[in-house]
Amino acid sequence: MISRTASSTVEKPVDPLPAVFRAYRAEIEAALRSGLGRGDLALYRMLDYNMGWRDRAGRPTSGMDSVGKALRPTLCLFACEVTGSPARRALPAAVALEFIHRFSLIHDDIQDRDETRHHRPTLWAIWGEPKALVAGNALRAVADMSLAGLVDEGVDLDRAVAVTRLLTEAHLQMIEGQYLDLSYESRPDIGMSDYLDMISRKTGALIRCSLHVGALIGTRNQAAVEAFRKCGESLGLVFQIRDDVLGVWGDERVTGKPVGADIRRKKNSLPVVYAMSRAVGADKEFLESVYRRDGVDDSDVDGVLEIMDRLGVRTYADQLASETCGRALAALAAVEGTADFRRKTEELAHFLLVREH
Amino acid sequence: MISRTASSTVEKPVDPLPAVFRAYRAEIEAALRSGLGRGDLALYRMLDYNMGWRDRAGRPTSGMDSVGKALRPTLCLFACEVTGSPARRALPAAVALEFIHRFSLIHDDIQDRDETRHHRPTLWAIWGEPKALVAGNALRAVADMSLAGLVDEGVDLDRAVAVTRLLTEAHLQMIEGQYLDLSYESRPDIGMSDYLDMISRKTGALIRCSLHVGALIGTRNQAAVEAFRKCGESLGLVFQIRDDVLGVWGDERVTGKPVGADIRRKKNSLPVVYAMSRAVGADKEFLESVYRRDGVDDSDVDGVLEIMDRLGVRTYADQLASETCGRALAALAAVEGTADFRRKTEELAHFLLVREH
Repeated sequence: MISRTASSTVEKPVDPLPAVFRAYRAEIEAALRSGLGRGDLALYRMLDYNMGWRDRAGRPTSGMDSVGKALRPTLCLFACEVTGSPARRALPAAVALEFIHRFSLIHDDIQDRDETRHHRPTLWAIWGEPKALVAGNALRAVADMSLAGLVDEGVDLDRAVAVTRLLTEAHLQMIEGQYLDLSYESRPDIGMSDYLDMISRKTGALIRCSLHVGALIGTRNQAAVEAFRKCGESLGLVFQIRDDVLGVWGDERVTGKPVGADIRRKKNSLPVVYAMSRAVGADKEFLESVYRRDGVDDSDVDGVLEIMDRLGVRTYADQLASETCGRALAALAAVEGTADFRRKTEELAHFLLVREH
Repeated sequence: MISRTASSTVEKPVDPLPAVFRAYRAEIEAALRSGLGRGDLALYRMLDYNMGWRDRAGRPTSGMDSVGKALRPTLCLFACEVTGSPARRALPAAVALEFIHRFSLIHDDIQDRDETRHHRPTLWAIWGEPKALVAGNALRAVADMSLAGLVDEGVDLDRAVAVTRLLTEAHLQMIEGQYLDLSYESRPDIGMSDYLDMISRKTGALIRCSLHVGALIGTRNQAAVEAFRKCGESLGLVFQIRDDVLGVWGDERVTGKPVGADIRRKKNSLPVVYAMSRAVGADKEFLESVYRRDGVDDSDVDGVLEIMDRLGVRTYADQLASETCGRALAALAAVEGTADFRRKTEELAHFLLVREH
């Protein structure tokens, strides 16, 4: 029997955020708070809770680290700054990206009936589904309100309109990806190309858009904007592939989910899709039987992990992520930039490749 | 015992749509179809079903009347045209308004667990809640995509940005209204001012916005734009008050809902809020006991209808709607316009006042 304790938990996980995350954190947090400071409705206290700023009783929390890593806003501000404009000019778009991301998580939790996220009860688990659904929609609308602030930050009208259009397209692609993800459920015939198409929309679109609109606000150099778009496209895949790896082999102490969590939930994540496409004979039969079954128990999870080991699924996933990360960096090779820019970009990409949560 | 058959069903209901609805119908339908023609995902077949263009198996329907009355787009195009611009310039905004309205209905049906709407099974009832939730979100994003088309229709950038901002604000107000509606549930202490505040957001915001952005696209005359905004504000209230009247006394053959439907559902609609605020003694106790109880049966509905009769609730609601309708027309009094414009406006307002569904 294979141990359900992942090998990566042997050492204490180290996961320091690259400096670029710290550089914009205060600005991002302030802009998020200002975007949500819309009045007295209890609805907004729910959203404050969701951001980590209040507890469920409405009392302000003391955590400095409440907004998390804010990946999408950070990518957006970074792209804006390194292409030659003040980072804060992209702040309304950066904040909109984070709100859209959070909106999608609120609705995901309702769909998946997840009662906790990052060790905290989810909105629907506390306030019930109807209010949580409405709160998610409110956050989506707040994102649009933030975006309307681009013009106030001195972004030209034509670029503000272009940014809005890109963000809307990315948002719709994200939703299309969520739909594909749902429609793949319980289907054992999903191949790697279906999977890559799905994640390029579900997670990829918003991450790609973060670098793309950041660069679009930062510069009028079309080639540079396109380079950031391509870089973002690859980074989005890296992010989701790593997410899927953590969903199977992640350290429970860090991710908050037990090893094999995504196997238990029968998610069409990379390890499962790849294993299903490579397994033959008894292995394939076993995998299919687990995915047809209603409940999945510990011994099923052990069996699936053992097959994944034998098929080299983890190695394949790590290599795919690593190659995709290489493509992300290569996309920026022709963009003019300082040594500092190169170093920060590499730090960022490397972080997405090895992060533990 | 009072009859649960509403008096209005004695005559055959007549409900001819004013000519202004027919004037724009073909253009609106074509633009809605083009807005949703985004590709092959089964997601879009769900949305086609929702619009009435396909049956649940995906087969095109033959109904010419599929999009319904399309009130919001009609108001928007009307305001644009009568303030001096071609109606089609406002078409992207008009279509966005309809998509936002439909998005809200898809999510409402999930929240309320309504299995039919206009005699057809709802999306969640057919495809399950997760896919219906995502389909609603997709429609919301499609609305934003439509809006991005304003610039292509020749709307100046500054006005396109202003229209987007107004629509976003109205959308957020709609969601705030939905939240208030939820938070009022099972609360017997909701007064008429709470009610009016709630409906001015939940339904009023989008209807007000329809005339407001139509006029904003139609003219640069600020006073005219403001007049249409005010007119829309009142018309939104008229619409919802009439909706609430139909929710209690409407003709089942037309509305698809039994008499007293909103009493059974314990909605905080105008008749209930007003009755609760006026009843005293045994009547008040009875109303409160019905609203505390888990199930509401026929004799409860009869009892509530009898109390409403005694308190003159229907008369009050009709008068309030009529006065508000007068304010809507008065708001446009100073706007320059032809006799034809006056006549059409009166037809429109009168229709909202007396419509049977």
